[in-house]
This record gives sequence, structure tokens and C-alpha cells, in this order.
Amino acid sequence: MSENSVKSSCRIAVDAMGGDFAPDNAVMGAVVAQQGDSAIEIYLLGIKEKILEVLKKNSASFPVDRIIDCPQVIEMEDIPTVALKAKPESSIVIGAKMVKNGKADAFVSAGNTGAMMAASTLLIGRINGVGRPTIGAPMPSEKGFTLLLDVGASVDSKPQHLLEYAILGTIYAKEIYGISNPSIGILSVGSEDVKGNEMSLAAFKLLKDSGLNFYGNVEGKDILKGTVNIVICDGFVGNILLKFAEGVLSLLKYKLKNYAEKSIIRKLKLLMFKSSLKGALSDMDAESHGGVPLLGVNGISIIGHGSSSVLAIKNMILRAKEMHHKEILRKFEESLERYGRK
Amino acid sequence: MSENSVKSSCRIAVDAMGGDFAPDNAVMGAVVAQQGDSAIEIYLLGIKEKILEVLKKNSASFPVDRIIDCPQVIEMEDIPTVALKAKPESSIVIGAKMVKNGKADAFVSAGNTGAMMAASTLLIGRINGVGRPTIGAPMPSEKGFTLLLDVGASVDSKPQHLLEYAILGTIYAKEIYGISNPSIGILSVGSEDVKGNEMSLAAFKLLKDSGLNFYGNVEGKDILKGTVNIVICDGFVGNILLKFAEGVLSLLKYKLKNYAEKSIIRKLKLLMFKSSLKGALSDMDAESHGGVPLLGVNGISIIGHGSSSVLAIKNMILRAKEMHHKEILRKFEESLERYGRK
Repeated sequence: MSENSVKSSCRIAVDAMGGDFAPDNAVMGAVVAQQGDSAIEIYLLGIKEKILEVLKKNSASFPVDRIIDCPQVIEMEDIPTVALKAKPESSIVIGAKMVKNGKADAFVSAGNTGAMMAASTLLIGRINGVGRPTIGAPMPSEKGFTLLLDVGASVDSKPQHLLEYAILGTIYAKEIYGISNPSIGILSVGSEDVKGNEMSLAAFKLLKDSGLNFYGNVEGKDILKGTVNIVICDGFVGNILLKFAEGVLSLLKYKLKNYAEKSIIRKLKLLMFKSSLKGALSDMDAESHGGVPLLGVNGISIIGHGSSSVLAIKNMILRAKEMHHKEILRKFEESLERYGRK
Repeated sequence: MSENSVKSSCRIAVDAMGGDFAPDNAVMGAVVAQQGDSAIEIYLLGIKEKILEVLKKNSASFPVDRIIDCPQVIEMEDIPTVALKAKPESSIVIGAKMVKNGKADAFVSAGNTGAMMAASTLLIGRINGVGRPTIGAPMPSEKGFTLLLDVGASVDSKPQHLLEYAILGTIYAKEIYGISNPSIGILSVGSEDVKGNEMSLAAFKLLKDSGLNFYGNVEGKDILKGTVNIVICDGFVGNILLKFAEGVLSLLKYKLKNYAEKSIIRKLKLLMFKSSLKGALSDMDAESHGGVPLLGVNGISIIGHGSSSVLAIKNMILRAKEMHHKEILRKFEESLERYGRK
């Protein structure tokens, strides 16, 4: 229904200095996205000289007037809150400010996650009715994927924060994934209503009375089964789970390599099978989803994995555009009001 | 050093009614263990008639005077504390009491986990110095496995409970896995000392000053990498993680099957590869480890997975014997005293 009110253009600020392969992947991701979609107006934020170098090296073109020189760089190992103050001329601070000041509709970065969260929360600010912003990550499941949130925006969440995650997640799953009435589960140690810790049990009560499509408690395995569309939890649990899941494919590769090394026949068999395995597990790769959105801040902010590829950066930009065109912020606000959070 | 003081025999009570495939797998697991090791004196606890039926069906022999008739059965869906009171003649209650009264050296069950924990904690009691017993589970890693605890004995653990888990885990890893000086990590949202939630940060301080081989904070992926030998966490997090991990192989199988169904060539390729994959991932299967011990109770209590196979039951019995012969309870006590917990 909102498709009629689509805005004609979308200005997206991209952190050229963010990620383990910056500025290369970030710059080229922006170039590819820009070439593929002229309705996006991309701004590249970073050390201008370095950005131009990457463009030259790749014989790529990008409008020079949309390269915003940011002489400071927040490194991956910088302490977020310290870095924000010490490096006001960094791409992360300037990108967040562009969104705050209405000069960009979205900001995308594969840089320091903590700094990106802090800049988004502190500089852009929260949506009215949101106590704590949250990061939602798609986890692979038998039915495609399960949206897990929070995966690390905050720890020691209170029950009302879980309710907020559920509201924000519902809108996100509806608008971005096209799930008409997404079901929500609370991550717990058993599926029975009485299972949980103090916080999850209190959140259970809030969710039960919320009017949202609440399924009840779910267990760790339900994320992978796809029992519900959305699983909510405290960021401490979600982050540990996300990083564990990221390690699973690495362990699998390690085990297969180790097994193959014991004989030539094994090695040949594995070589033959490699492409099948890759094909079968392709959608378990986080890269294909691009980054994860920080939901609840008063602007569009997408955080990418440090190892983001060119494709991942491009996908993050396209996701930002989609969120903007679907007016997701307005829908968050409306939904928070509907469910009594403001 | 303790090998000299090995006791000559070991009496192990086995719950014949526990698990999804009871009494068949439990009875036959006991039979196989008994046949393989005459130094163990196994007692089979359950409905005598049903036990005899399984023995007859399999043409197996087992000393009839060591079948303890327990007319009541605690089902998988029974509420633990309610069941303990309502079913005093059940195998779980009688097994725990046999350990308490010195009539058995260990109790092994693949039945209702909650009931098994409650019976062990309430009837056998805790070791002096232990606030909360804990369940340790071996998780697959690049270096073999990582001992994760607590995986669900309790939720809302206090920092001092994590210290206890670390002490108990250290002794267990030393004695049972032969790791001379096991390293310990606290599961957290980042590896830096300052990362964590209120509880984990308080536990960090306790561990740092404990004199144990404390490594610091570890992330979810470190469990799979094998960064440390022991990872400690609250049972809420550990249980969610354990069940998530259990679901990973199922998802893998599902994805491969789904992929294969799309063409005959894919199917043939996968068929050829099946044994290799199984071989490479064999040690990722929880079954091979048998059950998980409940550490901190004043007796040996091993809890099996509901789906325990005959082999898993047998392995649980052998593990119980090993714990008994290595005098692990005495070593727990000594260690708790050494680290000032009693």
C-alpha cells in the first residue's frame, strides 16, 4: 500500500573506510551499486585520496563531488565512545551526522560495529518509544531464515526492551521480507510457558498481552528449524549465538579438510563434492544478506560484517534503499504507538 | 597418582525406563556394558516385567537379582518436582536414593532431564561448597572439543556459581580428558576484558583472582575454534547454545537433501559423498560422548540425551565407572577447598 508513496531518490552515505578490506571493497561496492541503480545517490565518506586511488586502480568512475573527505579513521580496535569524541572528522561520525541533519537518508558501514552503534544511537538518536535500538540478523533455517534480535546492540536488556524488539522485528519482517503476519518466539531453555530466566519470563507476560503474533517460548534448535519467523532475546545471548553460528561453517570446512588430508581418495572425493556442498549451503552464508540493520534509531543505519565483500556492501546499500522507499521509519513509529510504546 | 587407590568394583544403577527408546536401548546398553566389563556391577531399575521382556526379545542374559523393580515411571513430559513427590517408586527416585544410601556408586539415566537433575540435587545432595550443580557438555571444536558448562542445570546463575563451574570443570577436564592444566574462558560478547553483561563481568573478576588457569573472555566462535579447554556461562545461555548446536547437523542434512532433490546428478553425487561426510563429522555427534555428568552433586549422576542409543547408554555407564575409579568426588571436594569455596 505504501508503494504509491515511493520517493523518487534516495541519498545513501557509505563508509569507505569501514571493514577489513577497506577502502577497496567499500568503494567498489558503492561503485557497483551506483552503476546498477541510478535512482540512488551514493556518497562515499573517507580519506579522499585513498578513495580516488581505489577508483583509479579499478578503472572505475564515481562522481567526485559525492566523495566526502573525512580525514580521520575509526579503526576496528578503537573504543567506540572514545573514538566518537576523539575523531569527529571520521567517516562514521560524519555519516551519522549526515543522516541526523537530513543530508542523507541512510548510512551504511562495515566498520567498527560498536562505534557504528554508538554513533547511530547518540548522534542520530532513537525513535520515540524505543528504549534501546536493536540489531536483527537473519539466521539460516529449514524454511529460509529466522530473524534473530537482538544480536548484540545491548546486553542486560529489560523485558520491555524485548517487547520493543518484537515490535520493530515485526515491521521489518513484514516490510522487508514480505511476511504478512510474522510469528514471534522468545528464546528460552524450553518450549513450555514456565521455562526461562527471570527476564525472559517477564518478557513472556508482556508479549502475551501485546497483541503481537506471539507464539511462546522457543529453544535454540527452533531458530534452525524455522518454528517462528522472529526470535527475540537479550543481546548477550543473541550475540554469542550469532558468533557461534558464524563459526559453524569454518568448523565444517576444517573437519572436511582434516578428513581429506588422510588419503588421496578422500581428497578426490571431497574435491568432486565441493561445488555441491557450496551450492547446498549457499544461503547459510551471511554475506548474501549483506549487513544487519540497527532498528530503533531515528534514521536508517546498516552495519556490515568486518569481512564484507564488494557484493555484501552493494547488498547493504540496496537494503538501505529498500528500507527508505518503504518508509520503514514511519511504520516503526506507527507500530510503536499502536502497541502502546509511546 | 590416584590410580593406585582404584576400587575393585563399581556398582552402577541404570534407569531402564529413561529415554525415547526405553526400555529397549537402556536395557541393551546395560547388557552390553555388563558383558564387556565384569568389574562393573550393574543394577537395572524399572518395571521388572518390561525389562525381562526386552532381555527375552534380544536373547540377552542379565542377573535377575540385579533387576530392581520400580513400578512407577517418570515420563519425559512430567513436571520434575511434582513427579519426584508423586512417583516415589519410580526408577529415577530409587536410583538417586541408591546413590544417597551408598547402595550404588553412580546413577545413569536418559530419562526426564529435569527430574534427573532434581532427584540428584535434592535426594543425593550437593558437595559442600557448591551452590548449584552444573552440567558440562563437550562441544565439537577444531582441537577436538571444548567443555561447555553450565548447559542448563540452572538459570540466573550468580558470579560465584560460574567460579564453581570453573573449579568443577577443571577437575573434570583433568581427570576424565587428561588435560593437565585446562584453560578457562568466560563466554561473552567480545574477547576484551571490558566486554560482557553485569554477571559475566563480575564473574570475570572472581576468575581473575581465583588462581585457576583463566584465559579471559571468549566469544561464541571460540567454542568451535577450541581457543580454551573450558568455557563457562550461565545455564540459560549454555542450554540455548547446546540446543542450537544440536540442530546444526539436522539443518545440514536438510539442506543437502533439499539440494539433492533438484536433480539426479546431484543425488548421485551426494550418495557417493555421504560416507565421507559422515566420517568427517563423526566426532561432532553428541552420541559418541554418551551422556553429560551433573557435577557438584555428592554422587555420580550422568544424564543421557532422550534419543540415546544402545552405544550411548553403554558409554554413559563406562563414563560413570571411570568417574568412580578416579575418585572424582574426593577431588572435587579437595579442589573446592583449595580455591576457598568451602
